[in-house]
Amino acid sequence: MSEPVQGFRFAGVHGGIKASDALDLGLVFAEEPAVAAGVFTQNRVRAAPVVISERRLKSGLCQAILANSGNANACTGKQGRQAALALARATAASLAVPTALVVPASTGVIGVQLPRKSIEAAMPALVADLSAAGATRFARAIMTTDRRPKIAQAEVKVGRTTCRVLGIAKGAGMIHPNMATTLAFVTTDAPIGRSALSRLLHRATDLTFNRVTVDGDTSTNDSIYVLASGAATNRRIEEKSAAGRRFAGALTEVLESLAKKIVADGEGAEHLVRIEVQGARSDTDAVRIARTIACSQLVKTALHGCDPNWGRILAAAGRSGVRFNPDHVSIQIGGIAICERGTPVMTPKREVKAAATMKRPEYVISIMVGAGRGVGHYWTCDLGHEYVRINADYRT
Amino acid sequence: MSEPVQGFRFAGVHGGIKASDALDLGLVFAEEPAVAAGVFTQNRVRAAPVVISERRLKSGLCQAILANSGNANACTGKQGRQAALALARATAASLAVPTALVVPASTGVIGVQLPRKSIEAAMPALVADLSAAGATRFARAIMTTDRRPKIAQAEVKVGRTTCRVLGIAKGAGMIHPNMATTLAFVTTDAPIGRSALSRLLHRATDLTFNRVTVDGDTSTNDSIYVLASGAATNRRIEEKSAAGRRFAGALTEVLESLAKKIVADGEGAEHLVRIEVQGARSDTDAVRIARTIACSQLVKTALHGCDPNWGRILAAAGRSGVRFNPDHVSIQIGGIAICERGTPVMTPKREVKAAATMKRPEYVISIMVGAGRGVGHYWTCDLGHEYVRINADYRT
Repeated sequence: MSEPVQGFRFAGVHGGIKASDALDLGLVFAEEPAVAAGVFTQNRVRAAPVVISERRLKSGLCQAILANSGNANACTGKQGRQAALALARATAASLAVPTALVVPASTGVIGVQLPRKSIEAAMPALVADLSAAGATRFARAIMTTDRRPKIAQAEVKVGRTTCRVLGIAKGAGMIHPNMATTLAFVTTDAPIGRSALSRLLHRATDLTFNRVTVDGDTSTNDSIYVLASGAATNRRIEEKSAAGRRFAGALTEVLESLAKKIVADGEGAEHLVRIEVQGARSDTDAVRIARTIACSQLVKTALHGCDPNWGRILAAAGRSGVRFNPDHVSIQIGGIAICERGTPVMTPKREVKAAATMKRPEYVISIMVGAGRGVGHYWTCDLGHEYVRINADYRT
Repeated sequence: MSEPVQGFRFAGVHGGIKASDALDLGLVFAEEPAVAAGVFTQNRVRAAPVVISERRLKSGLCQAILANSGNANACTGKQGRQAALALARATAASLAVPTALVVPASTGVIGVQLPRKSIEAAMPALVADLSAAGATRFARAIMTTDRRPKIAQAEVKVGRTTCRVLGIAKGAGMIHPNMATTLAFVTTDAPIGRSALSRLLHRATDLTFNRVTVDGDTSTNDSIYVLASGAATNRRIEEKSAAGRRFAGALTEVLESLAKKIVADGEGAEHLVRIEVQGARSDTDAVRIARTIACSQLVKTALHGCDPNWGRILAAAGRSGVRFNPDHVSIQIGGIAICERGTPVMTPKREVKAAATMKRPEYVISIMVGAGRGVGHYWTCDLGHEYVRINADYRT
């Protein structure tokens, strides 16, 4: 990793939540109260830490995030809420900061109570583990079925100072956007006000995390937190300035990178595929078509089989609820035309080329709707045996 | 099979569409023009035979249905439409009936042109194969990834006469309701008017075929045809009479039986599961919750793993778009309470019992929302390795 983001420390330890001795308890600590914003799942069933975090972030300030994997603390009723509050209190006491500035985040199995005592016992080790270079340990501590830790960085010039944006995320399953998906934590040393930060986060989320799917299931725990320490410079970023636009770009870049990493690490996934829709009547229509294709079980199994079965793509578009004329639609896989104006143009040679493209770890499927100028995209992955293996045996 | 339905003959032969020598071409023939109705896919991408059938059935009369498997004749442009029309013409000529009374139905791979010459060559053999007892051969001729042919029957008394309702369907994949799913053909010798028949068909479809899902993908070819010969008796059925209600019951029974057979034969499926929602604020809400649970990839893989992972069920309900309080929701698997008013009540003993229930070929998952008196259900199946195997390799 390059230069650390100023004003933050990170930690990751084993807190006795996972049965193995893997890291499962993480901490993000801002040396001073940071300007903060968040976006949270729109699932009506919301985990205890989501409810608490959303309420506390309304103050626009945050100093610590206690995150755990191995247990979502969702569907755990009153006992779950009390556990999350007690652990935030214990964290605040260990760090000597106000409890109101500490938020909890959890991910893992739903419907099981948190092992609160075990986590409390790990608190001294967790605080001792804090370091400016601890982002990778934190990233490991929030992994569930993830194969890889997920970190993304960007830089943004504010005046003559280089500010940094560091994002850390987890996620491989129960991935389907609705305001936010999975857990992501962004820290920046750029100085920015809370309402600007919140607006930029929502906009960046909509373009990135809200455009990915692994399995169509929106999580009960989806949350993105962004904390800005302002430690890099005193020159505050205004939203509608050149620096503000650069900051928005850096934030979007970090979230886009994390979102793609999540889909690429989708449970059992071997291919990261961008579904690119052009020529819809509106951007909304384009995104809707892209989303329906991206979520189709039949499309996703065809992606797994590296099978350019474009009929499934067109059939999925047809059930998206968007009005269009199928006779005007063209489809390309990795730039190879396989359907033109609703009619197959798949020669054996093209089929071989398209199938070869589909063996790549990342490629694009383009759908030209022929109805207007609306564009939109979605990131998806293939659905294979490994997904079934992981999810038919997850708890046992 | 018991007594055949009067006035109809059925056939099934190999027409050179499938690469194997399996039956792939079927014919339903009414000795006299039959009163007819249909429901068709709401997918915007509609196969050529769907467009033609829907238009022709508007007359309320039909005398023959030419059905094939191995090729959906969908996304095949002008050439596909011409092939479907030509084959209907050839069928009409072979049977010496008006072309306008012949409708085509196709199922199979999308985006490949029909082997029209080969089908025309098989026409004499197809007509020669017609017999009153040929329903099973017809049922075999429309199978794609189906493991079993699907036939259901019911009887209905009209005056002192016993009328028969015979339904034949196919379907295992690309199963998700939107007005109709897959292909189904119902014949009856009951005498009934066309508008009554059409209304009763729509109502029965809504309660049966529109309540099943295998993979969430609505087909381009979904169609249900019902043909009534009136050959059993001269006593015409009035919709709002006792006989009308009995006929509606028999029609619903046949469609419900076929719809369940389709889900039970869902690609790779080992379990047929009824998702039963009670206590929603309205029936619409209840069906919406049931559908979201029934379509969840994470729920369906848990069903495959016989894992009573009820958190996934509640999480799916939470993203259904229906308003409810998660703290009021209770869940039972096969009558065993595992979540009560939003809180886990899963003892190790209950978990063992629930897991045992989930090993059965058919069982019920009940969700009590605690918000009102709305009820609704959906039939779904598990998502396993066999589904992936079938769909990652379907065309190759």
